[in-house]
Amino acid sequence: MTAHENIAALLHKDRPGHTLPQALYVSEAAHQFDTQVMLKAVWLFACTVAHIKKPGDYYVFELGKNSVIIVRGRDGDVRAFYNSCQHRGARICETERGSNPRFMCPYHQWTYGLDGKLLAARGMVDGFDKAQHGLKPVACENAGGMIFICLADSPPPIDRVKADISAQIARYDLEHCKVAVMDDLIEDANWKLVMENNRECYHCDLNHPELLKSLFAYGYGKGLPEDDGTDVVEDDDFDAMFAAKQAEWKAMGIYHDLIEFPYGWWHRIARLPLANGAVSQTLDGKPACKKMIGGVDKPDTSSLSLWTQPNNWNHFCWDHVVTFSLTPLSANKTLLRTSWLVAEDAVEGVDYDPDNLAAVWRATNRQDGYLSALNHAGIATDGYRPGPYALEEKLVEDFKDFYVRESLKALAAA
Amino acid sequence: MTAHENIAALLHKDRPGHTLPQALYVSEAAHQFDTQVMLKAVWLFACTVAHIKKPGDYYVFELGKNSVIIVRGRDGDVRAFYNSCQHRGARICETERGSNPRFMCPYHQWTYGLDGKLLAARGMVDGFDKAQHGLKPVACENAGGMIFICLADSPPPIDRVKADISAQIARYDLEHCKVAVMDDLIEDANWKLVMENNRECYHCDLNHPELLKSLFAYGYGKGLPEDDGTDVVEDDDFDAMFAAKQAEWKAMGIYHDLIEFPYGWWHRIARLPLANGAVSQTLDGKPACKKMIGGVDKPDTSSLSLWTQPNNWNHFCWDHVVTFSLTPLSANKTLLRTSWLVAEDAVEGVDYDPDNLAAVWRATNRQDGYLSALNHAGIATDGYRPGPYALEEKLVEDFKDFYVRESLKALAAA
Amino acid sequence: MTAHENIAALLHKDRPGHTLPQALYVSEAAHQFDTQVMLKAVWLFACTVAHIKKPGDYYVFELGKNSVIIVRGRDGDVRAFYNSCQHRGARICETERGSNPRFMCPYHQWTYGLDGKLLAARGMVDGFDKAQHGLKPVACENAGGMIFICLADSPPPIDRVKADISAQIARYDLEHCKVAVMDDLIEDANWKLVMENNRECYHCDLNHPELLKSLFAYGYGKGLPEDDGTDVVEDDDFDAMFAAKQAEWKAMGIYHDLIEFPYGWWHRIARLPLANGAVSQTLDGKPACKKMIGGVDKPDTSSLSLWTQPNNWNHFCWDHVVTFSLTPLSANKTLLRTSWLVAEDAVEGVDYDPDNLAAVWRATNRQDGYLSALNHAGIATDGYRPGPYALEEKLVEDFKDFYVRESLKALAAA
Repeated sequence: MTAHENIAALLHKDRPGHTLPQALYVSEAAHQFDTQVMLKAVWLFACTVAHIKKPGDYYVFELGKNSVIIVRGRDGDVRAFYNSCQHRGARICETERGSNPRFMCPYHQWTYGLDGKLLAARGMVDGFDKAQHGLKPVACENAGGMIFICLADSPPPIDRVKADISAQIARYDLEHCKVAVMDDLIEDANWKLVMENNRECYHCDLNHPELLKSLFAYGYGKGLPEDDGTDVVEDDDFDAMFAAKQAEWKAMGIYHDLIEFPYGWWHRIARLPLANGAVSQTLDGKPACKKMIGGVDKPDTSSLSLWTQPNNWNHFCWDHVVTFSLTPLSANKTLLRTSWLVAEDAVEGVDYDPDNLAAVWRATNRQDGYLSALNHAGIATDGYRPGPYALEEKLVEDFKDFYVRESLKALAAA
Repeated sequence: MTAHENIAALLHKDRPGHTLPQALYVSEAAHQFDTQVMLKAVWLFACTVAHIKKPGDYYVFELGKNSVIIVRGRDGDVRAFYNSCQHRGARICETERGSNPRFMCPYHQWTYGLDGKLLAARGMVDGFDKAQHGLKPVACENAGGMIFICLADSPPPIDRVKADISAQIARYDLEHCKVAVMDDLIEDANWKLVMENNRECYHCDLNHPELLKSLFAYGYGKGLPEDDGTDVVEDDDFDAMFAAKQAEWKAMGIYHDLIEFPYGWWHRIARLPLANGAVSQTLDGKPACKKMIGGVDKPDTSSLSLWTQPNNWNHFCWDHVVTFSLTPLSANKTLLRTSWLVAEDAVEGVDYDPDNLAAVWRATNRQDGYLSALNHAGIATDGYRPGPYALEEKLVEDFKDFYVRESLKALAAA
Repeated sequence: MTAHENIAALLHKDRPGHTLPQALYVSEAAHQFDTQVMLKAVWLFACTVAHIKKPGDYYVFELGKNSVIIVRGRDGDVRAFYNSCQHRGARICETERGSNPRFMCPYHQWTYGLDGKLLAARGMVDGFDKAQHGLKPVACENAGGMIFICLADSPPPIDRVKADISAQIARYDLEHCKVAVMDDLIEDANWKLVMENNRECYHCDLNHPELLKSLFAYGYGKGLPEDDGTDVVEDDDFDAMFAAKQAEWKAMGIYHDLIEFPYGWWHRIARLPLANGAVSQTLDGKPACKKMIGGVDKPDTSSLSLWTQPNNWNHFCWDHVVTFSLTPLSANKTLLRTSWLVAEDAVEGVDYDPDNLAAVWRATNRQDGYLSALNHAGIATDGYRPGPYALEEKLVEDFKDFYVRESLKALAAA
């Protein structure tokens, strides 16, 4: 059997309602497949426009051995290129983030425009054609300030995702936000386990004291935001409160029905009430930043959450936005990058304290990293067999189903 | 050729009286075979009852990616289970040793009894059957207080080993011992080289000054404990002394003929005289612990040694017991765990000094780790060819023969 | 396809004037091929006679998992043996450099002469033949004090290289030099990229301020030492100066036409003028050592450079000699060892300051290591495609062509 046939056989062993076969989580072969095939066939969240505010600002996104420069052009548009000089292949951008009027390779000073065109190359043979040696582009889309890239030559459609996200998050105006804090956490677990961990709050009660100060597990798998009779846990108090909140949001003009992976698309958007009277996902429930986002005067007790498959989730509060991206580093190492955005005119130390801003999710990420590492290590034993998801783990299964479906699609196309 | 066929071909190249072919010592393929096939087909020494004294006490034994919980039940019996929750696979025991009235998975709080039965799982679908989701058991046997496990579905027989060990070490009463010191040493060598190193004292003279204060190389490959005419090194003084010691042991009721891998079994047990008037394997030859083991009044100048294939050796002195277990971490990394046991009522700082207790074997292990690393590194060169064992290396060959025989058996069954 | 067929297919994709296909630079398969096949089929620079001055002095050269002892015999000749005892395979020499009257394995004290013959082995079976258990030899040649080894059973010819090198560097009398400084630098790049980096000065201008204090880029790919009309960069001032220097060298009796990989051989030797009036490759252009080499009174403003394929380059100044050897550690790690030699009677602290002696190349190596790491990382992305060499990169192409040609030859013979 070839490597692809082996992966296909494992994918076909997947059982509804159960976790994946062992080798898909822990084997080196699955890691190679994920980084070389599966994750190159889908759109990935890379960063926001707040990470590259001015023309010339760039952000380097890495997936496996790939390194992609995402850059704001002179025209304000966002473009993406492989981080590899077309002379002898050296990396052009040496740092994760930076700014330059044009790209100059540090090795032999080949120079490219922000649009990727080769501008200068010294001492080449006669007949050398600069037009043939521009930076290799990568598909890149801006969905309301969220930047998605795709490493495929023919990327799948993104229009419905783009339209929904743009409409729902427009109010948070990411173009006028800035990155206040950016954290990297390397988790000792396969990236799919880090995703599964994110897609349920069945584990929250005993593990996330900081998060539960402001967050209802409802809406995160425990129950659905709509009172459609499918709540996993019946709770009349919550239902009444939620109905009142919906009415309030309608009055404020910020209500929208839950968008949940419509017709096989890969995004979920929900406005959810915060717990304990909180108006932001902070330790004390108060705003972490004095400057509100998107022209809001007074924050209400809700936040908007956006999840996309396969590597991203986000929470939009009225005073700050948190975005998460993850990328596999190896079969059992995953990089989780968390960015906290605030209004661009907020002043550190005056309007916000970075440590307070990051406190809830920094603690939560660390706790989740620990749990995901336990999860990975236990799956690697011969005692593992695919286990049954609980009712509150429906969104985990949604992720798993997406992974299996897109993997089979990518294999068929390979 | 498949991976198994490659290993079989290497095994068939083995020559009597010579070390193994290079690839069996240093290749990644052999490491995979050893941890996935060979070492899962045989019994392995894991720990002693002194490591898990009370109901609820557990000890986690790891082999490759496997993690096995060895636990003392409410009934006092010892059982073993894979360390993997049957929900989503997480590790249940997070630490190497601990104690709990039942096992609760830290991820989503699925709860199991000490007998492995699933007791509680929140929010499962209707029809979920707890009886189908107990912890997966691992074969486990208690031989006079020595705990052996086997990861095979159908473990090979162990009865003769169990009977012999139980009878010979009964006097040392491990149930009333406790672990005083436990050391982990990672050696930069294949596990088989660490075993080979243990199975001869041909290397002792220039390398182990601390050990040779109390240990005769005789009985460790240099000569046999019985005066059967097969001594590698003729030494009339030793023979006379040994005959006198045998008479003394008979009078004390602690004599037994050498048990040496009888009929293909995998254990060797010998009572051996200590050197230089020592009554314990310590730097000064005196007891390291004031409290004797098993009701002895006055220690004599002997110790009982027990070797098992493929991963263990032990020395029973009258004041303490040392057990060694080894497990491969990678093709060239081996974990050697050494445990020093003393009488359970001995008090640290009063009856024994832990550093003095561990001094001889801590130094010896470090020296052996250095030699084994040189051995591994040299075998990895193109200058290596299987070399001839010396006369004093007969027990090395016994180990090597066991490895080849059991490997071929495991391949035939695979 | 077998592993060798895969490598052959990649080699056949090589395009004239362009860098290699991606996988030949970054894949684990290419690393295995390079260390197991290609680099074992050619001569490698190991060290100089100055590294092993007296009988019994040894130097350990490592390539992949191979470890080779290079030793000065009682007769003054240099020989090489695998660093693996013929008993159980242990490394015999534990340190990189040392001296001993004979080799004694630290494990069981098997003892060998400096000529590799087994002298002593305790307690072997009757009929054991010492003559059959000498150290396994490695091909070894001394070219005017430069020691080359070859791990092949039938090494390719070396006579022309040996004759040319011996004749050209005789004046520098390596037998009467000593090693003053030896540096190890691990670069995060494939060894072939470290070589390519060495074979052009197209990257020097913005990257090597220390080096350019004394070195003309001319002669390092920018132009040829002879005014043969092929200079990449026309520079009348340089041409006039160079013609004057040539006349001066002829008068001094140290002139020789450029030797550049004649008829497919693998050595290049050029005398080149130093820049800015420097008489040595030092930060201030002055000699780093007061004692001159080879009986010279007054240094002139030139140095002799010697490059060999595939792992070495050297600069011979009148006061010191610098030699470089590189060996792959993994697909993306390369060990660069730099040795600075001075006259054997020079006294550290009196005649030379080691830090001043090493300053230029220590800084240059570090800069090159950084550039090579960027090069490797960028090549590993999907944005890489073989790029065109610039005119000044002709010697890079010479190296690449050598690599491809010798690799195909080695595959054909395998």
